Amino acid sequence: MEIRHQPYTITNCDFVLSSRGVLRHVNVVIDEGKIQSIGRERVGDELSCVGMTLAPGLVNAHTHTGMMYLRGYSDDQELGPWLKRVWEVESRAKEEWMRLSSELSIIEMLAGGITAFIDMYFNPFDLVQLSTKYGVRAAAGPTFLDSFKDPHEIDKEIREVARKRSPTFSPIINVHSLYAVSRQTLLLAKQLMEELDLPLHMHVSETRDELFEVKRLYGKFPVEVLASEGILGSRTILAHLGWVSSWEIVSIASSKARAVHCPTSNMKLATGGFFPINEFLQKGITLALGTDGPVSNNSLDIFREMKQAVLLQRHGYWEASVGARHVLKMGSQEGYKLLGLNGGEVKEGALADLILIDNKWLRPLTEANLESSLVYLATGRDISCTLVEGKMVYQRGISMKR
Amino acid sequence: MEIRHQPYTITNCDFVLSSRGVLRHVNVVIDEGKIQSIGRERVGDELSCVGMTLAPGLVNAHTHTGMMYLRGYSDDQELGPWLKRVWEVESRAKEEWMRLSSELSIIEMLAGGITAFIDMYFNPFDLVQLSTKYGVRAAAGPTFLDSFKDPHEIDKEIREVARKRSPTFSPIINVHSLYAVSRQTLLLAKQLMEELDLPLHMHVSETRDELFEVKRLYGKFPVEVLASEGILGSRTILAHLGWVSSWEIVSIASSKARAVHCPTSNMKLATGGFFPINEFLQKGITLALGTDGPVSNNSLDIFREMKQAVLLQRHGYWEASVGARHVLKMGSQEGYKLLGLNGGEVKEGALADLILIDNKWLRPLTEANLESSLVYLATGRDISCTLVEGKMVYQRGISMKR
Repeated sequence: MEIRHQPYTITNCDFVLSSRGVLRHVNVVIDEGKIQSIGRERVGDELSCVGMTLAPGLVNAHTHTGMMYLRGYSDDQELGPWLKRVWEVESRAKEEWMRLSSELSIIEMLAGGITAFIDMYFNPFDLVQLSTKYGVRAAAGPTFLDSFKDPHEIDKEIREVARKRSPTFSPIINVHSLYAVSRQTLLLAKQLMEELDLPLHMHVSETRDELFEVKRLYGKFPVEVLASEGILGSRTILAHLGWVSSWEIVSIASSKARAVHCPTSNMKLATGGFFPINEFLQKGITLALGTDGPVSNNSLDIFREMKQAVLLQRHGYWEASVGARHVLKMGSQEGYKLLGLNGGEVKEGALADLILIDNKWLRPLTEANLESSLVYLATGRDISCTLVEGKMVYQRGISMKR
Repeated sequence: MEIRHQPYTITNCDFVLSSRGVLRHVNVVIDEGKIQSIGRERVGDELSCVGMTLAPGLVNAHTHTGMMYLRGYSDDQELGPWLKRVWEVESRAKEEWMRLSSELSIIEMLAGGITAFIDMYFNPFDLVQLSTKYGVRAAAGPTFLDSFKDPHEIDKEIREVARKRSPTFSPIINVHSLYAVSRQTLLLAKQLMEELDLPLHMHVSETRDELFEVKRLYGKFPVEVLASEGILGSRTILAHLGWVSSWEIVSIASSKARAVHCPTSNMKLATGGFFPINEFLQKGITLALGTDGPVSNNSLDIFREMKQAVLLQRHGYWEASVGARHVLKMGSQEGYKLLGLNGGEVKEGALADLILIDNKWLRPLTEANLESSLVYLATGRDISCTLVEGKMVYQRGISMKR
């Protein structure tokens, strides 16, 4: 069932996970792509959501949608040999594989309640088109990776992608990693970042080998290199950071750089290391969650990622200070903050990027355990409906009363 | 749709995960509760399973079904304070809460492809009844826990439960832990184990605190105590073991005791420690997986547990030697071995305890990536049908041709 007009009203939800806490018996009015009111008011058509929870849309802040054609390939290997095998296949990948892969990844993410994502791969123009086709927010751009493509061609592509900004598509600059580009390429990326005022998204401090390699090349740790080259700042989005040092975290915080944690991928690829969520949060660093690509996870499910993030902290620290409410925020609100958007929260004035969760399998469910049920029990398969700017971009088993 | 008669034939599966590897274009004939043939033969009614994978039923080898009423309670705490809060509520639990809890847990497990489970709680007679009602294999029995109930009453209950053996119900003796019973109770449990020839299932070496406490009480580590008291042997089922020492693993192996790993619960309850899967497998110890109870996980999903087991090994060892095929075996075949049953495998002569997985969301799917897709991507929500002794005990969206 389509939503034909805005304004409309979401009614009869069992629970609403709002920024004021868990609410019951409230209506949520959507108009002009935003949440207009939360309370008694009803305007326009009504979307009756008995048995459901209304929550903020989720953000997959680090993924590689175009790799779906490789999911399940080389699953039981460490990152080093894994990357070698994957790059070998990628070097002969057809453009069509990437386009179809991104399309399948988007469908899977929408069906799992993901309303926005950050993509690093080699098919940014597909993402321009697909973000409009599916109405999902995509941040994507060409990727600097010297062994794959001449950096000057990437330069040209980035300038082209930068002109494709739309309500759903945001251009970014991707740099694979410090070990996969030359210093010259790095400085080219920096220049583009400043000239075009675009975010720069990069794998950083993912493995111990990377630290050794970067130390050998630059005499410094990865985040130190980014700082000394003038790249670290409010435009940079650093993914992984499992091997970041405490003094680099200080430097991330003071530079206002943003971070993405990908616990499942780091564990699956046996990268070791440790991502200290508390240190990031206490220093006020914007910190989101990513599934990483379909080949290194393999699911694209932020629900599972939220649980994994908690479990990994508890295993490492032997204590439970990071809990459901922290990772729920990282999976939604922090992701929107990282993207520079006013969303990821159920509050008046925020973008109407929302999900409706079928509560059927989430039992017993109360105000008190709602957050932890979403984190420790739910998966993307519990989604009934995904809304972006108030538009229904995915739905299963929901109907509208006019 | 019901299966009315045996023999019948499962046809048209996309894939069959058999003990001979991944098969395509084969029929599986079921008769008298067992797999009669895998090949060209077709007998009786046909269950057409286009778009599905046939795989062995999964075993949840350590859980507490009767705790479902507490799911989502006290989620963000470490084991010590968590157990204190949980025990406080349990001390005033009504019998009906436990019965309904076990029933809901069983429904959830069947819907997630679990065909057999081992239960430790205070309502074994409910399990006797529910295992028949739902056709699921349950191993359960009264639990020695001195602060809850007089051990002599437990003794009486065990003798009664021991007479309730049925095709689906297996009586066992549960001992909560070395720190929750006296030495006298422990010896009573041992005596019953020998006299009635029943398995003895127990939490062992779950936390570091437990090690300190047991060391203080007995001057030994937990498995050493079990060995010196004459309890460790082929009848004992040891759950958790996150803090087991290398020499205790040797002793588990030589005594033929069996082990259950519960990675998610250990991580969620911040017990630290480390469970070395490779050491257990290399020593030939029967090793299954458990979700633990709905309050400490919170899902009862062996698919998620299989992935978690791999991830935790990789994080701890920085290498990928434990992979999909190991945990698939732990989740099925090893669980059946632990229960003393010829099941958990798709092979001729084995029990027809089987699952049909809907492949819809498991894409791309090939012979080569089937195992890893089941481990890294699937969840219990992908189950279309669960069979125990060839009887359909759960089904969703499947139909039969007569």
